[in-house]
Formats: sequence, structure tokens, C-alpha cells
Amino acid sequence: MRVLITGAGGFLGRGLASALAERPGDLSRLVLTDIALPGQPPAGAQIVTGDLGESDFLDNLLQGGFDLVFHLASLPGAFAETAPDEGYRANLLVSLELARRLAAKRRGARLVFTSSIAVYCDLAGRCVTEHTPTDSVLSYGTHKRMTEIFLADMARRRELGAISLRLPGLVARPPGPSQHGSAFMSLIFHEIAAGRVYRCPVPADASCWWMSRAAAVSALRHAASLGPASLTVLQPPVLHAAIGDVAAAVERFTGRRGLIEWGEDVHLTRLFGAMPPLDAGPAQRLGFRADADLDALARAALAGDCS
Amino acid sequence: MRVLITGAGGFLGRGLASALAERPGDLSRLVLTDIALPGQPPAGAQIVTGDLGESDFLDNLLQGGFDLVFHLASLPGAFAETAPDEGYRANLLVSLELARRLAAKRRGARLVFTSSIAVYCDLAGRCVTEHTPTDSVLSYGTHKRMTEIFLADMARRRELGAISLRLPGLVARPPGPSQHGSAFMSLIFHEIAAGRVYRCPVPADASCWWMSRAAAVSALRHAASLGPASLTVLQPPVLHAAIGDVAAAVERFTGRRGLIEWGEDVHLTRLFGAMPPLDAGPAQRLGFRADADLDALARAALAGDCS
Repeated sequence: MRVLITGAGGFLGRGLASALAERPGDLSRLVLTDIALPGQPPAGAQIVTGDLGESDFLDNLLQGGFDLVFHLASLPGAFAETAPDEGYRANLLVSLELARRLAAKRRGARLVFTSSIAVYCDLAGRCVTEHTPTDSVLSYGTHKRMTEIFLADMARRRELGAISLRLPGLVARPPGPSQHGSAFMSLIFHEIAAGRVYRCPVPADASCWWMSRAAAVSALRHAASLGPASLTVLQPPVLHAAIGDVAAAVERFTGRRGLIEWGEDVHLTRLFGAMPPLDAGPAQRLGFRADADLDALARAALAGDCS
Repeated sequence: MRVLITGAGGFLGRGLASALAERPGDLSRLVLTDIALPGQPPAGAQIVTGDLGESDFLDNLLQGGFDLVFHLASLPGAFAETAPDEGYRANLLVSLELARRLAAKRRGARLVFTSSIAVYCDLAGRCVTEHTPTDSVLSYGTHKRMTEIFLADMARRRELGAISLRLPGLVARPPGPSQHGSAFMSLIFHEIAAGRVYRCPVPADASCWWMSRAAAVSALRHAASLGPASLTVLQPPVLHAAIGDVAAAVERFTGRRGLIEWGEDVHLTRLFGAMPPLDAGPAQRLGFRADADLDALARAALAGDCS
């Protein structure tokens, strides 16, 4: 099986590439692409750097034909909101063109697309399912939603075996500059572990959706293994917990006492810290799993591996 | 006010152009564009023929800046379903690029987009509102829905004062070759009026949504007159009636007895003849109106004017 990962230089992409390289199964070819791929690639993987928005690059990349593509490449939501032209190209047009050209080369290929919980509208405490109205307050979520709809139509036409997974902000991304609005959800892990004072922008009772990179990698691989899906958009299960409770789990795992000053950022709380319960029944029945509990989340988030 | 109509050579476009030219209000410039514009244009209108999918043509067209654009241009759904590449370009990319470039020239310009009831999924008898799940069974509806979402995001960003109206198949389109799956809804008017035998593809109790061109023109003009809308997607009210009842109204209006052989086309009945009731309350409260009744519909459909 010939497999392509776009956005392979990112946090999730690196984890997925490592996991595939470690347990290759029937993998005959693994191609990793991104603008840049720093560090050592996993053994056996082929690296192709370039801009998916360049038509010729995209054509050359897809030339050999792939049976399975994990399309992870995107610009982070907070950045895209300030750079609408770049967001339009990277988060919308690239996804549409990648899907079309993949299908033209290999009709019926499997495409696993990382959509985002940013597709949902203001949730106002409602329990969320795939059927929750989508009316994103970010262009990032708008483009993800448009791509979901586009891919579902391609699946209906049997051009691709496409499936979209709505992922939350994953933890714990490496510390450092971030264009992700949800960066605080990762930083709190690192800052407690390092014993540093952390000024968290949202209050302790801000209620977020949590998923480790390892759980996201498992979800992507599981999505790839499903037959041509009648369900083309899935909300994988995640943990739903107050950030204060997550901080307590990190304290238990690290044995360090958190030095946290809780903030009141209304915008970030609205986007990431006012998440209602989630009914991920359809995905659970298909075998998707969240991290087991907050202690498992803390362990996975700080372990840094994706096995 | 500088106004542009795309798709101005089509059935709805010709009606809208005539209506605007007759009652120009504060119109200072009226530009009509389409691939071709047969017949005599309304007095005072400027004609620009070309392909909106050509980047240079689009830029030149928008150069002067418009305060209001009625974006009607699209490929019919039945045709787009058989020609996915053409549909993708004409029904999706053109709409996105038109909106982006219009906003770049004149931030906050008003854009009235003719979406379609094809955005809805299989309705299974449910009463329809704007909140009815959208999961189109046509690429045409998929592209319309993606454009609605895109325009709503541009409106949220205050780049455009965009509003999308979900129109049904309009009656009575001129007889002749049609790429519209809903062509039968127009043909039945003409065939009864002409006293010809008509083999209608759907049964007499097929339940459709009906709107005359005159009512659609009024809805477009009313949409243009609203202030920057909090509602960016509207389902205008329409008549909900069995096609047999519409045939009876045409008989009353024309004084002719219909010679109709009713068919059993399952596909067309599913797409157009299994429409449930509609709750268009939000649009009604904003002043949108359906045709008064089936007799008014028959009169408007066969009168051929849009005053």
C-alpha cells in the first residue's frame, strides 16, 4: 500500500509518520510531504518538500498514485484568521485540489482528512454530535467544513473513499511560538512539568475537549482501516474536562505542584473553554476511542511518543 | 448604485434585468454579464460577455467596483452531475473568486447569491427550515452549500454584505432543451397551454415547491434592500403543492383541459417531487413573500413578465 502524509512536519504528522514506520503492516511506500521537514525522518520514509498550493508540485507529488492519503496540512486557525488569503489557499483550495487530483490518478483511493471541532458554531452548552449545526466563528473552521462537504460529495460519487475526522487541539504540542489559539491547552502541561509559573489565559473551570497526539494517531489509523464509509464525517470521542482538573492530573503524573495564575480571556474561553458534552456514539460504535482518563492523557501528553 | 448581474442571459437573470431597468430606483449603472446574452438588452444596461472562470475577464469585469452584485450564474444541476469538472469550476470556484475579488475592490459590497433547495439532503417528509440538515445528493447542491458557508464567513468578517437565497426550480422556464432536472415543472404549464399531450415524468401526487420567476425576482430585490444581514442564508417562502393541483390551476387559467400522462420516475420524484412542508418563518418576518396561491402562480408563470 502506497501512503502519503501531508503536513508531515507538524506535531500530528510527525507522530503519525513514526507510528506508520514502526508498524508498517502492508505499507510498500511512505511519502512525507511538507514545506519543510526538520529532523531525522523515520526509516524507510521518502521526503518530498514543497508547497501543495503550487500546481506543478502537487501534480508531481501525486504522479505515482497513492492508495491512502492522510491530509493533515493546514495553517493554524488563529493565523488563518489574520491572513485570510493564505488561509483560503492553504486550508481550502489545496484540500479541494488534492482530493480532485488524487481521485483523477487513483479513483476510489482512501483519503483521511483532519477536520476540526472549529467547524461547530457557538455551542451554548448543547451536547454535540455530528449533527450539531456548523456555523464556525473562524475562517479556519469554515474552510474545514467546506472541505468535509466537498469530500462527502466525492465519496457519494465514489471518486474517493473519503473520511473526515473532527479533531480538537491536541496535547501536548511542543512549547514555543504557536499560531494555534489552543496553544494554552498544551503549554499548561509543559509549564507544570518544568515547575514554572504559568499564566493560563482561561479560568480553571474552562471546560475543554482533550485528546493526546497518540489518541489522534490511533484515530487516523483506525479511520484508514475502515471500509468505504457510509459515514463520511466523524466526531471521534475525546475527554471533556475542566482545565483545572487536567492540571491536577498533570500534577499527579509529574509529582510537581502547578504554579498557575488563571485568566479570564473571554475570546479564548468562548472558542476553546466553553465546550459542552459530546455524544460520539457513532464513532465509538465504529471502534474509535478517547484517551482512557485524565491520568492517561497526562502520561501520553508528556511521554512524547505515539506508539 | 452600481449593480452587476451574473448569469444575466438566463431565465431568472433576464427577468431581474428587465425589472431593474424598468424601476431603476437609485441605479447609476447596470452591467449584465453571461457567456452569451441573446436578444435585446434592457435600455440603459451595459452588456459584457465572457467566462467568469477566466481570471483576467473576472478582474476586468469587477474593475470599476460594484455596490451590489446579483450572482446568478451557474451550471444546471443535472448537467453538473454529469460534468463534475465544469461544475466544480462554474458552480464553486467562480463563486468563491467572484466574492473574494468583489470584496477586494469594494469591501462591504452587497452580494445576493442564488443558492438552491438542492442543498438539502433527502428530506423524508420532515418540515424544512434553514436548519434542516444539508447533505445534498447532487454536486450542484454541494457547491451551492459550500458557497453559502463561504459567503457567511465573509459576512462575519464584514468583507461583504452577503446573503444567500435558496430558490426552488422556477416556473415557467421557456420550453426547449434543458439541463435542469426540474424541467418538467415548467413544461407542464406550456404543454397544457398549448393543448398538447404531456407525458409528465412524475405522478400527479408528486409534491413540489413552486415559485414563479416574478416571485423570485421580488425576493432577490428584497434581499438586496435589506441591511447587512445577521441572517446570511435564507429560505424564501414558496408554494407547496402536488403537481396535479398545479395542473388544475393551469387548466383554470388557460381554459384548456390538460392531456397529461403521469409517470413514475423514481429519481426525479425523489429530487423534486417528494418535498415536505416548509417553515419559511424567518424570511416571512423579513418581508419575503411566496406567490399568493396556485392561480396566481399559473398566471405569473404563463404571463412571462416580471413586473
